[in-house]
Amino acid sequence: MRTMSMPSSIRITDVGPRDGLQNEPTPVSSEVKIAFINQLQRSGVAEVEVTGFVHPEWVPQLADADDVFSRIDRVPGVVRSALVPNEAGWDRAQAMDVDKIAVFTAASEQFTHKNINCTIEESLDRFAPVVRAASIAGKAVRGYVSCAVACPYAGPVDPAAVVDVVVRLLDLGVDEIDLGDTIGVATPHDIERLLVACAPHVSPAEVTLHLHDTGHAALACALHAMQLGVRSFDTSCGGLGGCPYAPGASGNLATEDLVRCCEMLGVDTGVAMPAVREASAWIEGALGRPPVSRTGATWTQLSSEQG
Amino acid sequence: MRTMSMPSSIRITDVGPRDGLQNEPTPVSSEVKIAFINQLQRSGVAEVEVTGFVHPEWVPQLADADDVFSRIDRVPGVVRSALVPNEAGWDRAQAMDVDKIAVFTAASEQFTHKNINCTIEESLDRFAPVVRAASIAGKAVRGYVSCAVACPYAGPVDPAAVVDVVVRLLDLGVDEIDLGDTIGVATPHDIERLLVACAPHVSPAEVTLHLHDTGHAALACALHAMQLGVRSFDTSCGGLGGCPYAPGASGNLATEDLVRCCEMLGVDTGVAMPAVREASAWIEGALGRPPVSRTGATWTQLSSEQG
Repeated sequence: MRTMSMPSSIRITDVGPRDGLQNEPTPVSSEVKIAFINQLQRSGVAEVEVTGFVHPEWVPQLADADDVFSRIDRVPGVVRSALVPNEAGWDRAQAMDVDKIAVFTAASEQFTHKNINCTIEESLDRFAPVVRAASIAGKAVRGYVSCAVACPYAGPVDPAAVVDVVVRLLDLGVDEIDLGDTIGVATPHDIERLLVACAPHVSPAEVTLHLHDTGHAALACALHAMQLGVRSFDTSCGGLGGCPYAPGASGNLATEDLVRCCEMLGVDTGVAMPAVREASAWIEGALGRPPVSRTGATWTQLSSEQG
Repeated sequence: MRTMSMPSSIRITDVGPRDGLQNEPTPVSSEVKIAFINQLQRSGVAEVEVTGFVHPEWVPQLADADDVFSRIDRVPGVVRSALVPNEAGWDRAQAMDVDKIAVFTAASEQFTHKNINCTIEESLDRFAPVVRAASIAGKAVRGYVSCAVACPYAGPVDPAAVVDVVVRLLDLGVDEIDLGDTIGVATPHDIERLLVACAPHVSPAEVTLHLHDTGHAALACALHAMQLGVRSFDTSCGGLGGCPYAPGASGNLATEDLVRCCEMLGVDTGVAMPAVREASAWIEGALGRPPVSRTGATWTQLSSEQG
């Protein structure tokens, strides 16, 4: 029988404070966010996407970005990154001395049109000066490609369309390509097809995968991607970003789910499960609802029953 | 890059009416069960585990087993099976003309002790005459091995302990080995280790996998098992058997989750997704709570948004 070949370690970016909380209907105070981000920074993840320097009218949940970023701890070894949509955002990010920024576009014209009111080309033009400025300032830049598998408006997305955007991002000078299954419908086969298509331009080992778990296959996709060479994943503590009562709004792959599996597979994530569980319980308490990540809740109970 | 090799088809047994409903805290009327089972029989699954002929004091949720079995439809081509713990259960099953029976034991002494109040050896002795009688009556027998990966009381289970039980079941004459991750904590690597250990006695192509989704990795396990040659899976419509408000009590791998992934991977299940969704909505309406299977709810919405 053919057996699994897993990497010895992977790198985890917890995007919960940004991608998770920006999609949460429940408002969260700056104090809660700060405590949450500090907990995540001490959980062992390599990077925390702290917030987004976006227009407060566009994403009210992140209106306190500057206040939050200025007050969080600096934990040695942890990259504190933030989403930056344009030059105004870059100015704010620079004032906060972020370690790394993320720019974003999508592989679907319908998605960029509906979400950022421009074409893919215009989105690239909009953040090209940001990428240049970050490069001069010596800051790393992540380039998100949303809808890398499917688009909520246009349906399935051709990997060739993703490759076009990846090539443009690399030409602009981004340091990291982050492929996002924004609506969480990918199967392992979709991920494989995508990685194969992108391989001539960026190898799986250089790609970050950003999975949502709508179709319940995010963990299967991540494990398959690991076998194909991917070593970097975005997750969110507690599976934040989805609301269990709002069908269609599913969160990121839960940090707990990926870490638990990696622990059992002997793949080092650097993450301490108890610290993630604590952070997860904290933010879920603040949101006032049960966790999306089932591992978070049930594993604790099973562990204690076995004691 | 190494690519996925998937089977052309798999066989699905929906165990929701038995394994799902026997663990539901909400009582369900016989009428609701009958309608649910009939819907499942018409969903395209190969087999429905209809109920268990167990003592009503032991599992009150299945106290109406005879009434339910006598009133459900007979749908050509669909196997109607039932759990049978002992000779009294066999007499009831035979009176109902079930197509196939399932006997069960576990790979953990602690589990059999707490759940059926006997040793593994005693459990085998108890159903040995049932297997013989079924064989004489020309009925197929499935042999469940619970706790094939871990036990809620004893923790991780050695694959060698599973092999011992598998060999005993085969010696008794069961027709099908069903390996159960009863508490839903398996990773794909656990499944691989288990299948490799069992292979000298029963090949992956002859094994049925019974996965629960506590650790959120059931789908990853199923997809990996398919690559290793497994062609038969137990699932439950809607991910029944778990309660979202009761941590630790997680249901089976949801039929919808497996079928959706198989559809996208080109693996034939024979199952019509709309029929499963309808059955899922029906039983969830009866239980009065949102679905455990996220695919069930969210995929419908995404599909309609793309319309």
